[in-house]
Amino acid sequence: MRVLVLTSGGVDSTTCLALAVHKYGKENVTALSVFYGQKHEKEIAAAKAVTDYYGVDYLTLDLTDIFSFSNSSLLSHSEEKIPEESYADQLKKTDGKPVSTYVPFRNGLFLSSAAAIALSKGCSLIYYGAHSDDAAGNAYPDCSEAFNTAMNTAIWEGSGHQLKIEAPFIHLPKKEVVKTGLALNVPYELTWSCYEGKETPCGKCGTCIDRRQAFLANGVEDPALSKTAGA
Amino acid sequence: MRVLVLTSGGVDSTTCLALAVHKYGKENVTALSVFYGQKHEKEIAAAKAVTDYYGVDYLTLDLTDIFSFSNSSLLSHSEEKIPEESYADQLKKTDGKPVSTYVPFRNGLFLSSAAAIALSKGCSLIYYGAHSDDAAGNAYPDCSEAFNTAMNTAIWEGSGHQLKIEAPFIHLPKKEVVKTGLALNVPYELTWSCYEGKETPCGKCGTCIDRRQAFLANGVEDPALSKTAGA
Repeated sequence: MRVLVLTSGGVDSTTCLALAVHKYGKENVTALSVFYGQKHEKEIAAAKAVTDYYGVDYLTLDLTDIFSFSNSSLLSHSEEKIPEESYADQLKKTDGKPVSTYVPFRNGLFLSSAAAIALSKGCSLIYYGAHSDDAAGNAYPDCSEAFNTAMNTAIWEGSGHQLKIEAPFIHLPKKEVVKTGLALNVPYELTWSCYEGKETPCGKCGTCIDRRQAFLANGVEDPALSKTAGA
Repeated sequence: MRVLVLTSGGVDSTTCLALAVHKYGKENVTALSVFYGQKHEKEIAAAKAVTDYYGVDYLTLDLTDIFSFSNSSLLSHSEEKIPEESYADQLKKTDGKPVSTYVPFRNGLFLSSAAAIALSKGCSLIYYGAHSDDAAGNAYPDCSEAFNTAMNTAIWEGSGHQLKIEAPFIHLPKKEVVKTGLALNVPYELTWSCYEGKETPCGKCGTCIDRRQAFLANGVEDPALSKTAGA
């Protein structure tokens, strides 16, 4: 069976890629990265490094135009600042709305693009790295189980019963994703998460905070941080 | 309420646009056309003419890259010929699979793109012109009611309960779409359907056959054809 993996160069999708390679074999895996105008464009270089490491087929796509009207703070054309606090703290101020780094229906668009490409390349499964921490409190509603279930049905029905999606971590918190990845010897030193996309991780944005905590919960130091510290 | 309408320049989406303008007012309508490498690229010119006629906000998007691996006969880079017969006849040979002019998960991708843009532009509804004839026999599974229902849930959940989709003709055959449009005085002479995209409609492809029958069932001549004949 051939599988297409959405790969951003971060912790979750890299673990997802490792799992797909482990289950289906690298010769059956195609990885797809999407540039969409994110401030942390350097995550794409990390995705390239990770897919090189695993030796899988690798594709990139540019969907910047679609988000040209969005004011998400994650986008480079937006003047909104990326919040320097945890998602839990951000959600106290959003009145039930997604956090400011939510990019409108981004995962739906990524999965639909992946579906179009997967069907063309003979894949019958799409893997992506959504996990339960990202969906908590409606921070990223396009990481929720309800979204994932509906999107899977939409892709199954809309493809004429040829393609499914699977988010293997949808019920797991990020620390369990890291635990899975550590067991699979994922090269986390190659990954990039920080939303600021500067020389070194800022340590203050929601994803930096979550990432550090996920590694700490597993009793290990984040290999990407120790690489930076040693540089 | 603001509404975004997927507008291809054909009969169904133009009727959908007319309905949206009728219900919500032209000042609340944004139309979106997608170029995706279709052989009948000239439908985009028809979409422009139709949106000019209605005086609505109009956007275009190029998603060609996503379908670069597809061999759908509808795509200009494909060497597959567009079948010269009705969908019903085509389906006798596809063994339950979609017809050769099915473009992989096209409507899912269009709706996801529309969702990203709709959320950015303050729309709370997406309209699109899927109807029951297109879904019949799995010809275009991304026009089916099952797909539409799941995609609506995916967009509702994935947007954090900010956006819905509606396919007002999902239970209607094409002849009823035309009936609705005739009552709304839709300028069908401006529309384009033929998949071949040549100077005049071929009259032989599935969409030409369906279009002619839909107008005949309403006892009128297709205004686009009479325009051609009179040219």
